[in-house]
Amino acid sequence: MIIVLKPSATEKEINHIIEKLKECGLKPHVSRGEERVIIGAIGDERQLESQPLAIFPGVEKVMPILSPYKLVSREFKKADSIVEVAKGVKIGGKKIHVMAGPCAVETQELLTRIAQEVKEAGATILRGGAYKPRSSPYSFQGLEEKGIEFLVEARRKTGLPIVTEVVDPRDVALVAEHADILQIGARNMQNFRLLTEVGGYDKPVLLKRGLSATIKEFLLSAEYIIARGNHKVILCERGLRTFETATRNTLDLSAVPVIKGLSHLPIIVDPSHATGRWELVVPLARAAVAAGADGIMVEVHLNPEEALCDGEESIKPNKFKAMMGELKKIAEAIGREI
Amino acid sequence: MIIVLKPSATEKEINHIIEKLKECGLKPHVSRGEERVIIGAIGDERQLESQPLAIFPGVEKVMPILSPYKLVSREFKKADSIVEVAKGVKIGGKKIHVMAGPCAVETQELLTRIAQEVKEAGATILRGGAYKPRSSPYSFQGLEEKGIEFLVEARRKTGLPIVTEVVDPRDVALVAEHADILQIGARNMQNFRLLTEVGGYDKPVLLKRGLSATIKEFLLSAEYIIARGNHKVILCERGLRTFETATRNTLDLSAVPVIKGLSHLPIIVDPSHATGRWELVVPLARAAVAAGADGIMVEVHLNPEEALCDGEESIKPNKFKAMMGELKKIAEAIGREI
Amino acid sequence: MIIVLKPSATEKEINHIIEKLKECGLKPHVSRGEERVIIGAIGDERQLESQPLAIFPGVEKVMPILSPYKLVSREFKKADSIVEVAKGVKIGGKKIHVMAGPCAVETQELLTRIAQEVKEAGATILRGGAYKPRSSPYSFQGLEEKGIEFLVEARRKTGLPIVTEVVDPRDVALVAEHADILQIGARNMQNFRLLTEVGGYDKPVLLKRGLSATIKEFLLSAEYIIARGNHKVILCERGLRTFETATRNTLDLSAVPVIKGLSHLPIIVDPSHATGRWELVVPLARAAVAAGADGIMVEVHLNPEEALCDGEESIKPNKFKAMMGELKKIAEAIGREI
Amino acid sequence: MIIVLKPSATEKEINHIIEKLKECGLKPHVSRGEERVIIGAIGDERQLESQPLAIFPGVEKVMPILSPYKLVSREFKKADSIVEVAKGVKIGGKKIHVMAGPCAVETQELLTRIAQEVKEAGATILRGGAYKPRSSPYSFQGLEEKGIEFLVEARRKTGLPIVTEVVDPRDVALVAEHADILQIGARNMQNFRLLTEVGGYDKPVLLKRGLSATIKEFLLSAEYIIARGNHKVILCERGLRTFETATRNTLDLSAVPVIKGLSHLPIIVDPSHATGRWELVVPLARAAVAAGADGIMVEVHLNPEEALCDGEESIKPNKFKAMMGELKKIAEAIGREI
Repeated sequence: MIIVLKPSATEKEINHIIEKLKECGLKPHVSRGEERVIIGAIGDERQLESQPLAIFPGVEKVMPILSPYKLVSREFKKADSIVEVAKGVKIGGKKIHVMAGPCAVETQELLTRIAQEVKEAGATILRGGAYKPRSSPYSFQGLEEKGIEFLVEARRKTGLPIVTEVVDPRDVALVAEHADILQIGARNMQNFRLLTEVGGYDKPVLLKRGLSATIKEFLLSAEYIIARGNHKVILCERGLRTFETATRNTLDLSAVPVIKGLSHLPIIVDPSHATGRWELVVPLARAAVAAGADGIMVEVHLNPEEALCDGEESIKPNKFKAMMGELKKIAEAIGREI
Repeated sequence: MIIVLKPSATEKEINHIIEKLKECGLKPHVSRGEERVIIGAIGDERQLESQPLAIFPGVEKVMPILSPYKLVSREFKKADSIVEVAKGVKIGGKKIHVMAGPCAVETQELLTRIAQEVKEAGATILRGGAYKPRSSPYSFQGLEEKGIEFLVEARRKTGLPIVTEVVDPRDVALVAEHADILQIGARNMQNFRLLTEVGGYDKPVLLKRGLSATIKEFLLSAEYIIARGNHKVILCERGLRTFETATRNTLDLSAVPVIKGLSHLPIIVDPSHATGRWELVVPLARAAVAAGADGIMVEVHLNPEEALCDGEESIKPNKFKAMMGELKKIAEAIGREI
Repeated sequence: MIIVLKPSATEKEINHIIEKLKECGLKPHVSRGEERVIIGAIGDERQLESQPLAIFPGVEKVMPILSPYKLVSREFKKADSIVEVAKGVKIGGKKIHVMAGPCAVETQELLTRIAQEVKEAGATILRGGAYKPRSSPYSFQGLEEKGIEFLVEARRKTGLPIVTEVVDPRDVALVAEHADILQIGARNMQNFRLLTEVGGYDKPVLLKRGLSATIKEFLLSAEYIIARGNHKVILCERGLRTFETATRNTLDLSAVPVIKGLSHLPIIVDPSHATGRWELVVPLARAAVAAGADGIMVEVHLNPEEALCDGEESIKPNKFKAMMGELKKIAEAIGREI
Repeated sequence: MIIVLKPSATEKEINHIIEKLKECGLKPHVSRGEERVIIGAIGDERQLESQPLAIFPGVEKVMPILSPYKLVSREFKKADSIVEVAKGVKIGGKKIHVMAGPCAVETQELLTRIAQEVKEAGATILRGGAYKPRSSPYSFQGLEEKGIEFLVEARRKTGLPIVTEVVDPRDVALVAEHADILQIGARNMQNFRLLTEVGGYDKPVLLKRGLSATIKEFLLSAEYIIARGNHKVILCERGLRTFETATRNTLDLSAVPVIKGLSHLPIIVDPSHATGRWELVVPLARAAVAAGADGIMVEVHLNPEEALCDGEESIKPNKFKAMMGELKKIAEAIGREI
């Protein structure tokens, strides 16, 4: 940690800070420049986290040197993490995985048919929401337990592992019993109790980035899960809240290579929720693969007009199939495969 | 709801939409302009919420006419709502209330002393965090139940009603038993299960605006609580996430008069969390009162240097007292009182 | 235009609005719903642009139906516009063009060598800044006229057409005389006098999107140029200002397909300025091509460590060459070529 | 400047950086911590501005210690700057000034009448736009020179000094000849040629903050003007572009005390343009004064319904007068006057 002092800082103030650093077990290192005195704190700066050094008399600003997360960092673990979500389905390696399915689980028949269609086109994981977090209390909130049953049955029929969202710590045990991947939605990225809860299970977690979360905060939320013992975390970029209203959110594809540099965790992209418009899903899915994502998550519906949730952003199976063909070629162009 | 058609829309497409509207119980009203055909849907447009009309063939865009919330709206209830949080402490009337106290509850002695100081200076409600949502799993997470006990004891000593945050649906019963106001923090504004849970109690709720929540979403989250039966909702503006890094967040004081226009609910402002810097708290507290807030929430600590949480944004009792003097005069200037 | 009235609107207020619409040459169309009266204004709603109907008594909100731009719209011109910037170099067709070169023109020798390198690797246009808009008055501001000379000489040596920025209406004549494409930088996207000035020349204009410009505003700025008579506009997405600090800006690749839907103009992407970090340039250049961009603009420097401007985001020729190989394959995967 | 090295940095890389620092005239100061080697560069770090040290091999990140601006800083000049805009009208002292008038100058008669009304209510400066920067080329662009004439005549009749916007470096001489304050609008905050131009005149400049400008960039733009020789700069906060759509922009009142800390320049607030809605102008004007602004700028129109520009955000003279009464009391509450 670097502590920059005000030009007006007195020796007494400097000593007060030095004492505090020593008290916290750090070695102070004073550097007197022309315009400022600077104190470096050598040692584990995480000891200083709860110390509001910024308000000590004479301090101008405090600049941390180390990232606040540890277990998720590339520094902690150099090799890419590979998360096996079902026998032979490994996320984070050379193969790029495609998760597809309806926004919300609606009926058994519809779900199974969509699952068959996407499987045939090359998807390797089935998505579907049973618990739906909705902005309005008057919107369809999902089939809940019944939805989980339908997903389990669709998996039985197709062999596709299933990913579904969990929104309440009280539901984690049930969902973890049945799903192959527990999804934490964007709105719950900083629901720390939920993170802690899923951190207690030996089950892959798909953690979506919050709409206004920095990459640092995103990685800290992953750290919550891993710190609790569950290392099987897959990250998912799904768009930031910005001033632009032409799309629901602004997909931040830069986050893919940035996170690849900072962390060993796999990262996928969800172009459906990011844009909220089906006609943008295909170009952005292609872009996500080209940017280096380890997978994508796409909403597919047989009849988007009748979807109970987010029909605007769902594509039909024939479009999905055509897209898969393009994605395969793009993956090859950058030395990967789908 | 207004449905704007593409210039290329065919009669068949127009009829398909008309049929769908009728099916949903709405009366279609077609208007043929020079450049566009427009269909108005007369009736309760909330019936159309789950209909993805935007993707019907021939549709260019869909524009809702009504706000998606109802019970929180000024249209539903014209008079200002007044929430009584304890005997004689009413939020939303002529009197502006000041909630003050430490960010986190630390020790019984410290809490009680702060409570006495702020009471003497004119605060009418004591704040203090027992459950702390923190970005990092390695930060101090609060004293939890023990913190609640300390708050109860501080109330016994000073008579100040207490407000404290609840972060998990499983803790609501306990906190509701002891606190006078249940606080829902910014990060949990769209934790819908938590909103639904507090909606089931007859206890005032202080709902903080999420960092990236629009005013519409903020009001929809309040609607979740009221729709469940709990009408005692107090809103709290505490800053938006923007590109500016000089402050932790950007306090949106425009939200105060905007929300006063749209809703009957009281709204207060938290300048401490919004800015994250103690030296900005006083000018923004003054501005909040001048903008028409029904109250403010301010962090006060006897010794910010030693605070376990957010010491950077806490002010000392003497500064708090001086601020209260200014706030009283500003309140008078606009026909209110503190 | 749709005018939604308040529930409290009186017949007198309704008539006042109807009179105003007629006065502006529009046909009012009143629709009385259960909760609101709505007035549609049939005719050329651009007549109403300077009418502040939103503040007429009884009005709740005003919703425009048509986009405020016209000449740039896909509705005005269905086919893609193709801008020929030099003999045989056409932007907007099947071929994706790569513009490459240093951020700032520094020396003749360096520029020419970079030009030769990028040409050999497949670039078809040379970029280089002679007039540099810099946040600080103390930063290098470019070689100005001398820089233009160097660019002209580099073109003579390599045959590559040149694109360079113009920042002052007083310089447009000079730059237009020598450059093949006039670049308007992001900070000048709403420098309307500059837009009007370049609109008066028969010379391609590369218009960069402002950091906080909506797509609507971006297209309106293009409209300024075209309305003045110059139809040769090429758009360029180069990142939005958001809360994320890991990258300089947040590249908005969704803008590519969104703009393709709204406008006939070609659009390219600049991953160098968007990210500000050279190691992100390649993955995002790939993503831009995959998303459907008509070209990319990339900073290349022989020795980024010694660059006078933005060395952080420049890639070296060998990296550029490797990237071109990948881009070619991605272009093929989506039916285009480089 | 602090240069943080990667854990993997070699001695050779460290020496390469040390050599570069020495070459730039700085003294390197190496500190070897447990997890990182850190190099402090002692001396005038502005020498390093054009050095892309971040991309030197072995470097993890570079953190500047000093602010990039100098002349505008509180460090450079401790006392508040007071800008005299006309005999006896001094901005930046105890007295808070109110600038009022129409968005655009329309007719001589209307302008003079508004000027008389606002003067009587206590305004000390007349505002009015002659050159209007508009998003659309089809909107009213102002009366230009004729508008300046009208302003001069209104000043002659009322004695109020006038402030008006200049949008093109070619117009500065003319406007500077007639106006008392040259306004640089938000969209031109980084039109560096325009800044440099007004920097060459001995005439007060009102510099508005750009919609997406950080406070640092805002101060750097002021530095452009002062570096050229014109020290009479008045800053103006007028809202940020954020995701919130309930208001045109999000007024950032925190910027007032933040800038007061960083700079000696006076700062005023424009609640009219920030919000775009007349009913929000009064509460936010009050808040601006309470937050410590040195002045406010408000749009007033006799008949907003007929305004040629921004009628939505204009208040009528009677409302303005009532507001002035409140503002006077708020100013007194914080030890100032209006």
